[in-house]
Amino acid sequence: MPVNLPLPDISTLYPIAGVRIGVVEAGIRKANRKDLTVVLMDEGASVSGVFTSNRFCAAPVQLCREHLATGQVMRAMVINTGNANAGTGADGLNRARSTCIALAKRLGIDATQVLPFSTGVIMETLPVDRIEAGLDAAIADASASNWLKAAEGIMTTDTQPKAFGVQGMVGGKLVSVSGISKGAGMIRPNMATMLGFIATDACVDQAVMKQLSLELAEGSFNRVTVDGDTSTNDSLVVIASNKAGNPVIDSLSSTDGQALKVLMLEVARKLAQAIVRDGEGATKFISVVVQGGRNAEECRKVAYAIAHSPLVKTAFYASDPNLGRILAAVGYAGIDDLDQTGIELFLDDVHVATKGGRNPSYREEDGQRVMKQAEITVRVMLGRGPAEETVWTCDFSHEYVTINADYRS
Amino acid sequence: MPVNLPLPDISTLYPIAGVRIGVVEAGIRKANRKDLTVVLMDEGASVSGVFTSNRFCAAPVQLCREHLATGQVMRAMVINTGNANAGTGADGLNRARSTCIALAKRLGIDATQVLPFSTGVIMETLPVDRIEAGLDAAIADASASNWLKAAEGIMTTDTQPKAFGVQGMVGGKLVSVSGISKGAGMIRPNMATMLGFIATDACVDQAVMKQLSLELAEGSFNRVTVDGDTSTNDSLVVIASNKAGNPVIDSLSSTDGQALKVLMLEVARKLAQAIVRDGEGATKFISVVVQGGRNAEECRKVAYAIAHSPLVKTAFYASDPNLGRILAAVGYAGIDDLDQTGIELFLDDVHVATKGGRNPSYREEDGQRVMKQAEITVRVMLGRGPAEETVWTCDFSHEYVTINADYRS
Repeated sequence: MPVNLPLPDISTLYPIAGVRIGVVEAGIRKANRKDLTVVLMDEGASVSGVFTSNRFCAAPVQLCREHLATGQVMRAMVINTGNANAGTGADGLNRARSTCIALAKRLGIDATQVLPFSTGVIMETLPVDRIEAGLDAAIADASASNWLKAAEGIMTTDTQPKAFGVQGMVGGKLVSVSGISKGAGMIRPNMATMLGFIATDACVDQAVMKQLSLELAEGSFNRVTVDGDTSTNDSLVVIASNKAGNPVIDSLSSTDGQALKVLMLEVARKLAQAIVRDGEGATKFISVVVQGGRNAEECRKVAYAIAHSPLVKTAFYASDPNLGRILAAVGYAGIDDLDQTGIELFLDDVHVATKGGRNPSYREEDGQRVMKQAEITVRVMLGRGPAEETVWTCDFSHEYVTINADYRS
Repeated sequence: MPVNLPLPDISTLYPIAGVRIGVVEAGIRKANRKDLTVVLMDEGASVSGVFTSNRFCAAPVQLCREHLATGQVMRAMVINTGNANAGTGADGLNRARSTCIALAKRLGIDATQVLPFSTGVIMETLPVDRIEAGLDAAIADASASNWLKAAEGIMTTDTQPKAFGVQGMVGGKLVSVSGISKGAGMIRPNMATMLGFIATDACVDQAVMKQLSLELAEGSFNRVTVDGDTSTNDSLVVIASNKAGNPVIDSLSSTDGQALKVLMLEVARKLAQAIVRDGEGATKFISVVVQGGRNAEECRKVAYAIAHSPLVKTAFYASDPNLGRILAAVGYAGIDDLDQTGIELFLDDVHVATKGGRNPSYREEDGQRVMKQAEITVRVMLGRGPAEETVWTCDFSHEYVTINADYRS
């Protein structure tokens, strides 16, 4: 059961003019499952992507980078689940390329205008034949109102589809943003999540797309973790279809650029948090806020040490205020000159530790009360400087072990 | 159930002349449980210690460092379980100091000749009164043949005591080595384990003790991990009682120094591996061997990335050869210029991946056969240089979650 994650509100999944989506069951790994999605973009869209920092990056990630580097206008994406096409060597690259060629031929475009994505089991051979066999039906299914279906089409161990949209005024025009994401395990994006796609009809110069996608990733997907395992396939793609009629945004720091970024970041953050809320086995949603660091990097180190500690995560699962485990994680986070006597720890409004020791006025029942909640904020104050960072994570339950001991079966 | 960890063989737990141990039930946290241990050393022992790198190090760790730095001859140790006296601020330091004073008074020595150790729950107040009340009985119990009792006296979530001993010739004399350790969770020593004590009757100059303890830690406790959580209390203490009559060892690189180190490293490594074999919820013992790195540091990075991955650990638990997860961990280990096409992966004798992709001759049933074993060696060849490192770890089971969701109850 995801933590406070309602099913997508179809009324806010705005069609994005110039972007059509088709989804079919291609039987890639299992039967009777939406597992092949194509995204078709009208000529003239601005597109950028952010990809995993895993050095064992998957074949489709390698091709995405290669195709985006050509500087061509991207026209289509093809996404399969059931197979990650990672750890597949030269053969995997050839298979990803064949997929792009097959779709490009049907659309009358260049293969290098297609971005491929795969997600699923690592180190297994991609069944290109089944993907090719499904492409005609997927293209025939393409429609601007298929965002929910696409969110379903990219799921793996997700328990529910993840999709959000917003509308707002940019440059005097009503602009729409819709996005989808997937992912529940192997989640510690170090660029983006497993898969995230966000589109807007706003007019945005291709020249600022790279920066836009980086900033969106930094403020959302790069701040969540489930199990600390950075995937081989993480990809976030941002599309501006340039149909809304607003003055073209050529700088993110302009008023219009800021307005659009606020809208898109809202969707990106909801999508990223949805992955944590639906984290494998998650029963709680935890925000880890680290304040008072000398710089953002040391705040992140501390936040991730807490968010990755199996002991902290099992204590949250048990609603057990065994909060010394949080102090231990702060201590091994890697700040060499950390002075433990400067540390303050809060659990929501409860002041647990002061000057590195138990707060004399802290009462176990107050900690217990917060630990029982489904949403909890851990706040650590380092007392070293002005920096602050937030990371979102979930707890660690029996169900996580069950899911990952059974994933392939 | 620990993995292939027999109960201590009492016949090999050699008394160490000049070292006596007393153990009692002091009711520190729970009744009817050996929880207070004193170790008394005759005048003239050489002693050194290696302690946690956690910046939130416990009060007793701070005092151990302070007392060893005085250059005095250490005469006693006092060890309690049930309370870690970590995250306890200035009050915790005072309480650790009181404990040393109380023991020193009874023995007629200086408080700074006492090394204190605590292990148990973090951020709770040390009950000094109960410890003091137990000291007389503990001193009365002191005997050279209490090594097994001491191993029992320092247990927390350990399911069985951990103690090993060896004898060998050093400088023409028969020398004995006995050691004990404890620990099962919060295990990713970055100096030593939760608690490890190794004593020999060999004659060793105090001047080489620091280097000896560091080398023993590097070859044993600093190569194991259960859950990646570096404890606040990790301590390894090495004692040479100087009673064996061998020519005093004043250099570790001498023939005698090497001979003694081999003996002591055998005990240290068994003690460290015992902690993994008894790791919380462990059902398998896994050796991660990384070869072909440019240097030891990058080999360790890769080995720990594999050993800490919840996805890899749950796959071992399930005996599921979902081995792409190992490649993913290699990829995010932090080697920026890693070339995935140079990677080879073996599971025991089974060649799973070659040139970064699935080995064409790899058969799932071969991987399955190895995964079902209780002891497994993962071998990754990076193809970048001559360095090699080994890390020992265990799998990740339902039982780990159960233990850590219930530890304090």
